[in-house]
Amino acid sequence: MLPRNGLLDRRAFLTAGAGVLSSAVLPSALAKETWESGPGRAPSEYGEPSKFSKLKRLRISGHPFAPEAGASSSPLESMNGTLTPNSLHFERHHSGVPDIDPSLHKLTISGNVKRSLSFGYEDLLRYPLVSRVLFLECSGNSYANTMAKAIDQTAGEINGLLSCAEWTGIPLRLLLEEAGFDRSSDWVVAEGADAAGMNRSVPLSLVLDEAMIALYQNGEPLRSEQGYPMRLLVPGCEGNLSIKWLRSLQVRNGPAHTREETSKYTDLLKDGSAIQFSLRMGVKSIITSPSGRMTLPENGVYEVSGLAWSGHGKIKSVEVSADAGETWTEAQIQSDNEYLKPVRFRVPWRWLGQSAVLQSRARDSSGNIQPTRDVALAHSAPGFSYHYNGLQSWGIDQTGRVSNVYV
Amino acid sequence: MLPRNGLLDRRAFLTAGAGVLSSAVLPSALAKETWESGPGRAPSEYGEPSKFSKLKRLRISGHPFAPEAGASSSPLESMNGTLTPNSLHFERHHSGVPDIDPSLHKLTISGNVKRSLSFGYEDLLRYPLVSRVLFLECSGNSYANTMAKAIDQTAGEINGLLSCAEWTGIPLRLLLEEAGFDRSSDWVVAEGADAAGMNRSVPLSLVLDEAMIALYQNGEPLRSEQGYPMRLLVPGCEGNLSIKWLRSLQVRNGPAHTREETSKYTDLLKDGSAIQFSLRMGVKSIITSPSGRMTLPENGVYEVSGLAWSGHGKIKSVEVSADAGETWTEAQIQSDNEYLKPVRFRVPWRWLGQSAVLQSRARDSSGNIQPTRDVALAHSAPGFSYHYNGLQSWGIDQTGRVSNVYV
Repeated sequence: MLPRNGLLDRRAFLTAGAGVLSSAVLPSALAKETWESGPGRAPSEYGEPSKFSKLKRLRISGHPFAPEAGASSSPLESMNGTLTPNSLHFERHHSGVPDIDPSLHKLTISGNVKRSLSFGYEDLLRYPLVSRVLFLECSGNSYANTMAKAIDQTAGEINGLLSCAEWTGIPLRLLLEEAGFDRSSDWVVAEGADAAGMNRSVPLSLVLDEAMIALYQNGEPLRSEQGYPMRLLVPGCEGNLSIKWLRSLQVRNGPAHTREETSKYTDLLKDGSAIQFSLRMGVKSIITSPSGRMTLPENGVYEVSGLAWSGHGKIKSVEVSADAGETWTEAQIQSDNEYLKPVRFRVPWRWLGQSAVLQSRARDSSGNIQPTRDVALAHSAPGFSYHYNGLQSWGIDQTGRVSNVYV
Repeated sequence: MLPRNGLLDRRAFLTAGAGVLSSAVLPSALAKETWESGPGRAPSEYGEPSKFSKLKRLRISGHPFAPEAGASSSPLESMNGTLTPNSLHFERHHSGVPDIDPSLHKLTISGNVKRSLSFGYEDLLRYPLVSRVLFLECSGNSYANTMAKAIDQTAGEINGLLSCAEWTGIPLRLLLEEAGFDRSSDWVVAEGADAAGMNRSVPLSLVLDEAMIALYQNGEPLRSEQGYPMRLLVPGCEGNLSIKWLRSLQVRNGPAHTREETSKYTDLLKDGSAIQFSLRMGVKSIITSPSGRMTLPENGVYEVSGLAWSGHGKIKSVEVSADAGETWTEAQIQSDNEYLKPVRFRVPWRWLGQSAVLQSRARDSSGNIQPTRDVALAHSAPGFSYHYNGLQSWGIDQTGRVSNVYV
């Protein structure tokens, strides 16, 4: 079925040129003179955003009596490309951000190993590193969309516990081999040096294949809120598994069944049972523009743009619908699409004042397809849904106002 | 010839495990307790680096009476991965940084076009975008190595007018098509809104194939020092061509022969002639660690790590030598190696107190190979070398001290 309600072929912008764009552009009088009349600022040691465009994370306090135990989300609706600047990467802290002096910090490897090892920060800087661009998503991301009524919030407010960075670190396998880990063991328990003592169990197979001790983020040393001086990074898995301020790794048999894998971060079902260790994040996409609380200024052609990612592979395709899922068209996705790397998708859309519901739907290389909201929530107990990856629907009314809707 | 002077196979770290690393690691007593005793900081709106690891750009003043007409370079020796955070991206300003209000700024397209057009910032946000990870290098980068004596500086001080970012912008071809550009014209002259009125001529073919109007850098709006609200970006070419604070594009026949393509940014040769419009940056690599002014703390295995890039294609391979170019071994380069995208290379090296000269040598997909210093400078007039891409040599003496050397 041909895509309806204004969706254009993904190549329309590039092949049709001025014809497509003519309604979207406002040629006005020739440029207002903005030539600066005198010298500007000198170069600086550590730059800052322009005062006209400084974006902000939305802070979400965890508890009235413990504001430090909260989160902050990336303002996805104002960003573009795929990367998140470190200053805008989402945060989630269970007891706030410690400022750790790296010269005092040690990482210990113990448990079922031939020799326990302890590494200082300077020791680790000597090790071989790998760099990978990866998404990181809190398993509570998009939680708002599991609630009974659709909340009128922005793309970032709803879905901004999702960020993307180039992480550089030591393949954890190297350090475990050096410690002489017991190959019949099956779990590693990681613990952070924050006051919460955050700890999680990670399957050894996942550690050996993919995990790293991250030391750099987007080229510079980790930020404190991301675990400086070092964090565990388990690509493709819920963010909580990537223990920040990492101080201890213990090789053992069986998981530790910590608070964060029993009381929390599990998926409670309607029948009263719960799924533990659903670690890999599902295939997901969101349209970041147009998105919640925006208003389309006038009739014309718009670029529908968003992010797609999967913890199970690379993104195979993203489709976009403008009629609440009745018809779909394939979006353009960027070329450097790799395993566990988020991608930006784009498709042109003509809005002529009609009401519409925009959705995106991603598929990954493992054959998974992003579910509708109904399917995503079919088995979940109300109020207990982590790992929500259902479709995000943005309704556009005849005034151009965009809002979060359920369909 | 087998690589000598301690270079190991690029896979040695990953296959030999503890055997290779045992001399590099300092297992000490079990971890010093760094468990935080109370809550840390709450989430923040726009994060900052840890006070223990905040990197700085090196500022280079342009002139005693005009400090704003200067540059700042990325601290490459303290960074890792491939990306440069926006706060650390190199700067080069000819009259300082203007703080432009985007609501007052216009971009005009005129000259040999059917209709002159003027675009406001909000207009441009509606256009289709592309995202690409690209290096940007000042044509004066590594200028220090063209001087008669090797200067004892760091990797960033010598080579840090090189940074890497994900740029997101509008393919310029779209805007030119909308203006109905004259296809028999052959140049576009771009001009910035800074007080210097920086202007450069760009071949139309290059504009149509590759140039974009960049609006976002690493996910957030451009920084003022990178041209906010918009800059021309001509991938693979000398940074000066990517006009910041872009206010005007004029389609014409022939170049404008501006100051920056006659008096400056040309390659003066020994015979008194000069090469104009040598726009694409040559294939190049530098080792960022170990590098100038570092000291190796002890005998052991080190990761030799650096960056490679080319304005003529993708990086095909990088070799590393520890004996001043007598023998070479191939380095590991990261997997997501694409056209005009910089890569990180790595190779393990065992240092047992011997003196050594480390060099890296890159080849690109167009068949170019990075030249020795002598070859790179063979035809240049003294003191007039832009576009230096010769080998960077780091000497290591028997105390482990690393310094810039010529060989």
